[in-house]
Amino acid sequence: MTATTVRAVLFDTFGTVVDWRSGIASAFDTVAARHSSRLDSVHLADAWRRRYAPSMQRITSGDRPYTDLDTLHRENLTSVLAEFELPFETSEADVYDLVHAWHELAPWPDSVPGLHALKAQYTIGPLSNGHTALLLEMAKSAGLPWDLIIGSDLTQAYKPDPAAYLRPAAILGLAPAEVMLVAAHNDDLRAARDSGLATAFVARPLEHGSDQSIDLEAESDWDVVADDIVHLAELLHPRLAR
Amino acid sequence: MTATTVRAVLFDTFGTVVDWRSGIASAFDTVAARHSSRLDSVHLADAWRRRYAPSMQRITSGDRPYTDLDTLHRENLTSVLAEFELPFETSEADVYDLVHAWHELAPWPDSVPGLHALKAQYTIGPLSNGHTALLLEMAKSAGLPWDLIIGSDLTQAYKPDPAAYLRPAAILGLAPAEVMLVAAHNDDLRAARDSGLATAFVARPLEHGSDQSIDLEAESDWDVVADDIVHLAELLHPRLAR
Repeated sequence: MTATTVRAVLFDTFGTVVDWRSGIASAFDTVAARHSSRLDSVHLADAWRRRYAPSMQRITSGDRPYTDLDTLHRENLTSVLAEFELPFETSEADVYDLVHAWHELAPWPDSVPGLHALKAQYTIGPLSNGHTALLLEMAKSAGLPWDLIIGSDLTQAYKPDPAAYLRPAAILGLAPAEVMLVAAHNDDLRAARDSGLATAFVARPLEHGSDQSIDLEAESDWDVVADDIVHLAELLHPRLAR
Repeated sequence: MTATTVRAVLFDTFGTVVDWRSGIASAFDTVAARHSSRLDSVHLADAWRRRYAPSMQRITSGDRPYTDLDTLHRENLTSVLAEFELPFETSEADVYDLVHAWHELAPWPDSVPGLHALKAQYTIGPLSNGHTALLLEMAKSAGLPWDLIIGSDLTQAYKPDPAAYLRPAAILGLAPAEVMLVAAHNDDLRAARDSGLATAFVARPLEHGSDQSIDLEAESDWDVVADDIVHLAELLHPRLAR
């Protein structure tokens, strides 16, 4: 850990705090059931998620003005539906529900207790590509006890753009080194460290399912490496160890 | 109440949620004690607060770019100290502590329980002239369980500028009528209603001390009129009445 005292612990959300894959697969299942049909819902969830980073990259590179995730998710869903031949015609309500499913993803079992433990000592919030309204709805439905929510609409930047890491620190009135990013993704932590933030890796070996091959472990000497968010809270204030 | 369902209940903070006058008077007392002296601290707190609205008015009128409350408070304190002859020389630490005292004001006794009750059913947050970092520190020290904090630095607007009311609604993804402002100040509610927000008056008859003469009661047919924030929570979901 750096000598600077961390005052805010901010979290990547999709994958790190909430389980997007199960939640989105379940949303596809719900839509299929509505049409008395079945889908390879996990496959569709993965295909949808694969379009996530490239769609933001066009914004980070300056080819496109800031556009929020609801819009990107809807566009990407349109391509997924065009690519995969579904056994039924999707309605506008289906599309709405699928896009909206990203607002109501369930937390990993350790997320809520871990965040409560951290909140006693640190400012906690998301540092996510989600916009504020999406992250608020996620927090209310999942019970995430954030102190505040600074969405990508407020920073007008998507990770790994340095502004996505530096603007939240500035809004908090903190130096970058006083802010820690917690993520299950080594590339996110690399970009955060490049911007001067402290870093914590939390393993999420089931984010991509049981045959996950990436981000199974820390790929650098991140300031903290934890098994989950409860463990992270223990490492950050060891006096509260279980 | 309007037919539209309120989804977010946002609060004026200084005076409505926290007791600025006692807190600032106490900060002057602390500074005086440091110099083995005494001050008419309530008088100084009132003199400082009187400069609050005019200093923001210059920004709302466009005469000055957005400048946060820490800076305005510091400038206004300099005028107060120039006007009142203090029996000692104030240090930079004194000035810092006084400006910082606005970050750590105590809540009225009903604020925290009332906010917890409201949070179960609504999105809650401040709609204050404070900037995000100030409001965050206030929330952490006073235990205010906001869902999110959208400070004036994020809206770049001070009340009663319509943008100060409309931008938080837009960030929340809500129509103005889906947002309720709660305030102990009739003029704040007038401006909120002019922008289409729902309104709730909460009486704070001791905000300005025991001889307060303004804002003792609702001066219009606000959507809700409550004795305090616990009462407001009861009125907004009557099934939880005590």
